[in-house]
Amino acid sequence: MSGNKFGEIFRITTFGESHGTAIGVIIDGCPAGLKIEPEFIQEQLDRRKPGQSDIVTPRAEEDHVHILSGIFEGISTGTPIGMIIYNKDVRSKDYDNLKDLFRPGHADYTYFKKYGLRDYRGSGRSSARETAARVAAGAVAIKLLRHFNINITAYIISVGKIRIKTKNLQLINTNKILCPDTDTAYEIEKHLLELKEIGDSTGGIVECITTGVPAGLGEPVFDKLSADLAKAMLSINATRGFEIGDGFACSELKGSQNNDPMLPGYKFASNHAGGILGGISNGNDIIFRVAFKPASSIKLPQKTIDIHGNPVEFSISGRHDPCVAIRAVPVVEAMTAITVADHFLRAKNSKL
Amino acid sequence: MSGNKFGEIFRITTFGESHGTAIGVIIDGCPAGLKIEPEFIQEQLDRRKPGQSDIVTPRAEEDHVHILSGIFEGISTGTPIGMIIYNKDVRSKDYDNLKDLFRPGHADYTYFKKYGLRDYRGSGRSSARETAARVAAGAVAIKLLRHFNINITAYIISVGKIRIKTKNLQLINTNKILCPDTDTAYEIEKHLLELKEIGDSTGGIVECITTGVPAGLGEPVFDKLSADLAKAMLSINATRGFEIGDGFACSELKGSQNNDPMLPGYKFASNHAGGILGGISNGNDIIFRVAFKPASSIKLPQKTIDIHGNPVEFSISGRHDPCVAIRAVPVVEAMTAITVADHFLRAKNSKL
Amino acid sequence: MSGNKFGEIFRITTFGESHGTAIGVIIDGCPAGLKIEPEFIQEQLDRRKPGQSDIVTPRAEEDHVHILSGIFEGISTGTPIGMIIYNKDVRSKDYDNLKDLFRPGHADYTYFKKYGLRDYRGSGRSSARETAARVAAGAVAIKLLRHFNINITAYIISVGKIRIKTKNLQLINTNKILCPDTDTAYEIEKHLLELKEIGDSTGGIVECITTGVPAGLGEPVFDKLSADLAKAMLSINATRGFEIGDGFACSELKGSQNNDPMLPGYKFASNHAGGILGGISNGNDIIFRVAFKPASSIKLPQKTIDIHGNPVEFSISGRHDPCVAIRAVPVVEAMTAITVADHFLRAKNSKL
Amino acid sequence: MSGNKFGEIFRITTFGESHGTAIGVIIDGCPAGLKIEPEFIQEQLDRRKPGQSDIVTPRAEEDHVHILSGIFEGISTGTPIGMIIYNKDVRSKDYDNLKDLFRPGHADYTYFKKYGLRDYRGSGRSSARETAARVAAGAVAIKLLRHFNINITAYIISVGKIRIKTKNLQLINTNKILCPDTDTAYEIEKHLLELKEIGDSTGGIVECITTGVPAGLGEPVFDKLSADLAKAMLSINATRGFEIGDGFACSELKGSQNNDPMLPGYKFASNHAGGILGGISNGNDIIFRVAFKPASSIKLPQKTIDIHGNPVEFSISGRHDPCVAIRAVPVVEAMTAITVADHFLRAKNSKL
Repeated sequence: MSGNKFGEIFRITTFGESHGTAIGVIIDGCPAGLKIEPEFIQEQLDRRKPGQSDIVTPRAEEDHVHILSGIFEGISTGTPIGMIIYNKDVRSKDYDNLKDLFRPGHADYTYFKKYGLRDYRGSGRSSARETAARVAAGAVAIKLLRHFNINITAYIISVGKIRIKTKNLQLINTNKILCPDTDTAYEIEKHLLELKEIGDSTGGIVECITTGVPAGLGEPVFDKLSADLAKAMLSINATRGFEIGDGFACSELKGSQNNDPMLPGYKFASNHAGGILGGISNGNDIIFRVAFKPASSIKLPQKTIDIHGNPVEFSISGRHDPCVAIRAVPVVEAMTAITVADHFLRAKNSKL
Repeated sequence: MSGNKFGEIFRITTFGESHGTAIGVIIDGCPAGLKIEPEFIQEQLDRRKPGQSDIVTPRAEEDHVHILSGIFEGISTGTPIGMIIYNKDVRSKDYDNLKDLFRPGHADYTYFKKYGLRDYRGSGRSSARETAARVAAGAVAIKLLRHFNINITAYIISVGKIRIKTKNLQLINTNKILCPDTDTAYEIEKHLLELKEIGDSTGGIVECITTGVPAGLGEPVFDKLSADLAKAMLSINATRGFEIGDGFACSELKGSQNNDPMLPGYKFASNHAGGILGGISNGNDIIFRVAFKPASSIKLPQKTIDIHGNPVEFSISGRHDPCVAIRAVPVVEAMTAITVADHFLRAKNSKL
Repeated sequence: MSGNKFGEIFRITTFGESHGTAIGVIIDGCPAGLKIEPEFIQEQLDRRKPGQSDIVTPRAEEDHVHILSGIFEGISTGTPIGMIIYNKDVRSKDYDNLKDLFRPGHADYTYFKKYGLRDYRGSGRSSARETAARVAAGAVAIKLLRHFNINITAYIISVGKIRIKTKNLQLINTNKILCPDTDTAYEIEKHLLELKEIGDSTGGIVECITTGVPAGLGEPVFDKLSADLAKAMLSINATRGFEIGDGFACSELKGSQNNDPMLPGYKFASNHAGGILGGISNGNDIIFRVAFKPASSIKLPQKTIDIHGNPVEFSISGRHDPCVAIRAVPVVEAMTAITVADHFLRAKNSKL
Repeated sequence: MSGNKFGEIFRITTFGESHGTAIGVIIDGCPAGLKIEPEFIQEQLDRRKPGQSDIVTPRAEEDHVHILSGIFEGISTGTPIGMIIYNKDVRSKDYDNLKDLFRPGHADYTYFKKYGLRDYRGSGRSSARETAARVAAGAVAIKLLRHFNINITAYIISVGKIRIKTKNLQLINTNKILCPDTDTAYEIEKHLLELKEIGDSTGGIVECITTGVPAGLGEPVFDKLSADLAKAMLSINATRGFEIGDGFACSELKGSQNNDPMLPGYKFASNHAGGILGGISNGNDIIFRVAFKPASSIKLPQKTIDIHGNPVEFSISGRHDPCVAIRAVPVVEAMTAITVADHFLRAKNSKL
């Protein structure tokens, strides 16, 4: 009800504020018998963590995951898997000058209106730091899906106005941008360093492909797999759009162009649909894109008001990313994994 | 779990197949004391129903709503509101030649894989006819929101490659396209009649504005108001994308351009965010767009396979819309109303 | 949230008031492929319906079930099964003299305080008539469980101070009391006719045995199978208590007496636990008892107040049961079936 | 779905095994603005913790609660309240001789059948240690309810065959038994020391009174306040029965005896119903009783089988309570508080 849980069978609940004691997640619904190495969870977290390169925020969190329950002798027991990450590099003082401001583009004003108070330190609960808990849970979902040969890969396809020209998924981890086109990655990197220099930020688009999904996942009507993916993606900080398959572009197509004919062998001649028909996976790759807005935290001076309604000018001195889409790549993968894992388990009850 | 319910407090469950006995909806969670006129619900249904003009399917459903419970002497009692619509114009024979086929772009194959069988008549549960139940429930949500001066308006902004040039919401109901630009509406109408002639279809984009939403609706983290709207929209048949505020376009902007500065009076200087920050309404208009694919049912001959995997060529002779986005306009409004009403009620427990 | 749904995977939502247009139920989550004969559902309803003998209320409802969706060619399709029963014998006038009273033992006052208004006709939503919808849904659950050789039998073990002396489940349907002891049944019948004569009522206890339940159903911690059965039973009108296995009596036992030793063959030497350990079925018969209070509607004159707080004396002239526990027997079976069916489906995701 | 959460709006999820790293709880849905002192939570935990007297298990857990999130400057922020308790006194070796046994009365066999494996150390997740997490969450619920003058008191009314003769709630905390009758408490204490001596255990009954509950809490039909209390109580380890108001005894009463007449001033002349009518609170005290079985862990030698099905004789040498009902008293209060708090918040949406 308060919106901190996601999923029906593979259900996660996250908790924790950016500058509180710890953040964490409970996975309730991971089947017993899954082999889970703590190292794998840590690896996924390391992919998201700040301070990895000159183009992401240098906040030096260790982001060390502690597994509190649910795994015994390396195997899931079917009971809730509790994981926490202590907050260590807590410089709350950085936020002292911001505590009475409503920063543009942030959730300061909306949290204040909703709750009547707010934890102003580093955006509190609305901080992207919360997504570390999702990545930890996502690691378990990824393990579960890999067990059934389902694999998820997300990557950057555009930053600002710079778009990829080619797409080679082998190249994603060869550059800091997590981009399947090395030349574009280089161009983006240069652009981001410039933005960092002037203290501005930019948006970007993440694409995500899931392979190996059997036909039949997703519930008709409201819990369409596409609808749950849309929700999963729009629940990530700074997202502004979601499209699957041909997405918005297919609004310009004709039915005769957009329909994916079926071929003998129960294959499809094309994949305009992005792998989902009527909300249910059709066995094709699931492919979608997520739009990220430019980070709201910029060093350039900005105008706003304080909690008393008085106009103020301010600038933010904290540690921030020029393009949050890049660090969001593992978060997109994690939320995709959690969504698909949930529907994978839900599908067990479709037929007698 | 099976995905036929939507909402947490204002919760709806729909049921019914296109060519079964009836379709319907149960609203569980409408507060007691709301004045609900059956005529208003019927009016909303009439906006969605087929056969209204030459550019939508001529299926002559009466779509008469029967209220079974939950309203006593014109007032909601707090108990579940049950509504059904009998299916009358049931020409199941139209579908006899399709019963063993997997129509491209339809849910035939995915339902078959999910359930091991399917009700092939008129797409069964995956038919857009199910959305009539949503519109009936949405009418109640609209009444609830209007009681608090929250209003929702959806309209067509593009069909195929034809986009609006101007936007005057007063004009929406003056044309069959539900378009805020009369000239564009005329152009679209001409285009659709041509498509109908050749037996093809096209996609379109619906935009939706909600006014009067107080700041503070939406839950942080997973049940962001934007995330729930994304899910609501992607749960509508034939949708392929959702974007809020500047949407995908804001991926090309800089933070200094995209941030909406706050002004004295707790107003915003702009609305790039589309009325939601950190998943919570900020008091601005909520504005988003939904991409609809071209209808899969076209009269042109198509290739596919049958349930035995054999290749077949076929064409569909039923009654279908050249652009489903148009009839989806009241469905977009209904799902928006249900989502916002749910969060309106949820917000009552944010603070002590 | 508003409490009209039950179950997680096999999930039902009921709706309807005693004297409204219809009552009904939606089953969301019945797996596809289950053979369901409408006659079987009707039979179950007929077991519950009023007017069957001189010791139950003579209200002459036909209670004819209409299946609106979810079953195609006699087989469940996996989509929601919608069922309604029209209210026919609606004598609302019987209630005109009660509309401003708060009848003792009824929900009149509590509904009024909760909702600010109430549908006074025949208790509205709080009428036991709502349980007909549960019985219809329960029939589907019973079919599902029988497919897996799980069987449920409930029966009367006491009415007022009269208790069974012997227990032969073969005899249950040979008497109007649904009692496994014919002599006791006869004694009870005589007692009830006397109560009917003087216009009073009495309570009773229903026992229920479920056989064939495999070990492993039920979730640890909160959704223990025993906890969900307790909730299911206490959700039935007029219930005041639930006990499983030795129940309250085992509070007087020693551990050395109460523990059920295990024997080779994975059997148990005894069944003090009533078939559930740690909230999970152990393969033994599940056996529990439910206490029903005497019906609140009696013909004897009673004192109470009206909605203005003024004292009044009144008597109820409607049609009522001298012991509601008897007609509740199929309701206990239905709710047990729904609970066990739900956990049967939930258990599919315990292990990888 | 996996049964580790409880509540709809005031929703808790617990996690953790008896001998794992930590146990804990997330409260999702506590409204912002509630003053919560960590000391109060600790006090509640101290009431439950082992080692307090010679009649409860001497396991010397410190049970120190760590608040990880959701409370800022002593006030709830509306975000999830995460709390953990590290397991310190972990003598897993005590359980080495039990790891291949199915102990009678324990969940060993059922967990094994459900999950295909089990964490055998100290019963793992099925240990009553899990209830410490409930008590921590319950402390927050108690604070919330006290803010609205709702108070909860539980106490022992019987142990084995020894029942209270008088009831003075002032006396509860004056004896180790938490019994409102000092003489009976003394008698019970003597009995328990005898049982401890011979290595056996006994059951008991806990009664619970909630005062100050406004009329109107509880949802009709399935989520009756009484039904949710029944579930809450049966979800506590070692419970076997629940009864409200006159409970099982009222099955022997007549309607004319059992109905509680209303008096001017909207009061009731009696409280046979236990404060709930039609599932909704009527403003009277809510009073119910919970039956606890004798603890399954006894020192006396017992027979059972091992996981290979071979018969074995064994005895348990660990640290255990002769009567678990006593330490369950604060757990009953905690679960009552969580249930009532949840319905208190749910009731905000009953009327417009």
